[in-house]
Amino acid sequence: MPKLNSAYLNLRPAYLFAEIRRRTKAFTDAHPGVGLIDLGVGDVTRPLPPAVIRAMHEATDEMARPETFRGYGPYVGYEWLRALVAEHDFGTRGVTVAVDEVFISDGGKSDSANLQEIFATDCVVALMDPVYPVYADANVVAGRSGPADDSGRYAGFVYLPCTAANGFQPALPDRRVDVIYMCYPNNPTGAVATREALARWVDYARANKAVIIYDAAYEAYIADDGVPHSIYEIPGAREVAIECRSFSKNAGFTGMRLAYTVVPKEAHGRIGAATKSLNELWTRRVNMKSNGPPYVIQKAAAATYSSDGQKQVRALIEDYMRNARIIADGLAAAGFPVYGARNAPYIWFETPAGVSSWDFFDRLLSVANVVGAPGGGFGPSGEGYFRLTAFGSRAATEEAIERIRTR
Amino acid sequence: MPKLNSAYLNLRPAYLFAEIRRRTKAFTDAHPGVGLIDLGVGDVTRPLPPAVIRAMHEATDEMARPETFRGYGPYVGYEWLRALVAEHDFGTRGVTVAVDEVFISDGGKSDSANLQEIFATDCVVALMDPVYPVYADANVVAGRSGPADDSGRYAGFVYLPCTAANGFQPALPDRRVDVIYMCYPNNPTGAVATREALARWVDYARANKAVIIYDAAYEAYIADDGVPHSIYEIPGAREVAIECRSFSKNAGFTGMRLAYTVVPKEAHGRIGAATKSLNELWTRRVNMKSNGPPYVIQKAAAATYSSDGQKQVRALIEDYMRNARIIADGLAAAGFPVYGARNAPYIWFETPAGVSSWDFFDRLLSVANVVGAPGGGFGPSGEGYFRLTAFGSRAATEEAIERIRTR
Repeated sequence: MPKLNSAYLNLRPAYLFAEIRRRTKAFTDAHPGVGLIDLGVGDVTRPLPPAVIRAMHEATDEMARPETFRGYGPYVGYEWLRALVAEHDFGTRGVTVAVDEVFISDGGKSDSANLQEIFATDCVVALMDPVYPVYADANVVAGRSGPADDSGRYAGFVYLPCTAANGFQPALPDRRVDVIYMCYPNNPTGAVATREALARWVDYARANKAVIIYDAAYEAYIADDGVPHSIYEIPGAREVAIECRSFSKNAGFTGMRLAYTVVPKEAHGRIGAATKSLNELWTRRVNMKSNGPPYVIQKAAAATYSSDGQKQVRALIEDYMRNARIIADGLAAAGFPVYGARNAPYIWFETPAGVSSWDFFDRLLSVANVVGAPGGGFGPSGEGYFRLTAFGSRAATEEAIERIRTR
Repeated sequence: MPKLNSAYLNLRPAYLFAEIRRRTKAFTDAHPGVGLIDLGVGDVTRPLPPAVIRAMHEATDEMARPETFRGYGPYVGYEWLRALVAEHDFGTRGVTVAVDEVFISDGGKSDSANLQEIFATDCVVALMDPVYPVYADANVVAGRSGPADDSGRYAGFVYLPCTAANGFQPALPDRRVDVIYMCYPNNPTGAVATREALARWVDYARANKAVIIYDAAYEAYIADDGVPHSIYEIPGAREVAIECRSFSKNAGFTGMRLAYTVVPKEAHGRIGAATKSLNELWTRRVNMKSNGPPYVIQKAAAATYSSDGQKQVRALIEDYMRNARIIADGLAAAGFPVYGARNAPYIWFETPAGVSSWDFFDRLLSVANVVGAPGGGFGPSGEGYFRLTAFGSRAATEEAIERIRTR
């Protein structure tokens, strides 16, 4: 038999959200009559904005006529979409991003998983903890870690704990690292970084020749003034940071699959005896392995930047953030210490003393029939916490809180 | 600076089709008035079938209503699409494929590039030569080769030459290999394998504990009776073969991005001291790195299996294959030795004696203003050959042949 990638042996048994789905399905199979409320996986529930729907119908009709049919698109995404991204998501905030620094992709999950491919296998990876599990998992199977200990801490990774004790703001690493995964607004804690905090990280990366992979998938949820929306608002960040964004959570594109990554031309790495631009290397990787997302989906994304599209996206976000307040207030009233829910669509709270996050998951599922996400699934420092999302319908959200308070 | 993946240094300068696009753009920039005909990249030109367009409009409308909106789909693709694949593409030919052996993806290119991830880095890779370049490139950057020699032959890969001398049918490897990339109907030569030839490969893989990655992206173009459409028509293949298919070239989905891969549960590999099912490992990889293709695109693919959809897809294929005959007959009349064009939408022919395939590319571009694909770009044994595709419009195809014959 062929030899398989043994790094998979280091991977903990199941991907967090797959395990959530598995336990949920086991429960509903055993209790078919029960009405579950899912505030777990973080999936949106509101329909796509009308401007997006219109663009999709138009693009579909283009695909029906020989003179407007589109086959293969550019590997890196259509230039008109890359230009809209550069102008609207960065230019309007005084940040210069060139069109050929924007790479359109089929999702933040893929980008999170794939970016590590351009780095050497012996790079040391640092991760905010807790955080979106894909950063760690993709590096585990790429061979950058050993196995995990009982708390889920992979050997070789540098964990940057974010807990209530430090206000969910990680300290700088105590050893040299090469690649640092950061996510702000943070999934799952909902924390944001101040300009000063982010500047410390950029300075650290510049001084230590590290690169920051900055996941800003929830940027649209930032409500507080003065919080940076892009890491490139920090001087010098273009030399050391890659930024990922997504249309999933602002425009409701989780079922549409569209995201992008910015790789500035000033960011470089060592390759053999030479130096190479990360932009050049990532371009090569994308050219080789991707054909870009579907035309109709890219047209749909472009529509989010229209005047109507922007208003409709804003309304979606505000609507979800009313859910966030309902959940946060309800949990606080029920006595849980609650975090997040202000600049992010996630509510992060402490489980009762002595109750592990997976035990709390099972309890919430069986008693309140509410599906959440156990903090431990996001990293060892997430143990003792639990995440609910603001992406449910209003009625389901209110009902979930009512159940949690009364059952 | 962080250390980059030095295996990229082994990769030849540009991805074939990116280089074709680059040279084409340089020519049109220098000669803005010239009307080019593109029979190079292999992109389809006919609009999507009406049944597909109807399904896309319907799916778009579903995304506009809260009660039918779809967020995240299953990582591996929707079960209704996997079931249609299993039934129509395999069941109707007497081949049993289970629904959970079908993995829906965003393209044959991604599958071709990604499947190698589940194998060990020291696996020995064998490749039909010439063949779609992504198989080699993805394994190069994964570190399974050394640099290429002047002919483009990467050190460490086992090349399986397919030339006119052996009827484009490769001999079995002369050393043990672990992973064998095969493509039938072949891109670029257009050759197909008989049942007997394929059985020899399956036997070889079983005897040598190898796995075959079988790319059947052009399966719908098989015209000759008796030619296997799936490697699973060969007894024992389920233990040693992964099969990839695509909607790109049958239903015109190059701009839609949809494909699938079959990983049978009987196929196993060694991982550490244990044995593991490739299906289980690939499931884990897909769960971790993908969220599946967009809902509307999966609905569009499902529509190709409707009665109308099947008729419309068949008409598309027959239309393209009329182009194939026009090109093959025209080239033969012009004195070129011509292959393919019978069970595949590619016409493979010999360049004039002493003219390299890239020189022929440049000559065809500048003299006939026709874009093709140089055989050498598909592997060292492709040198001295050239590929044209049948995917142009009828008028452009006829005009291209007229130009080649008269200029």
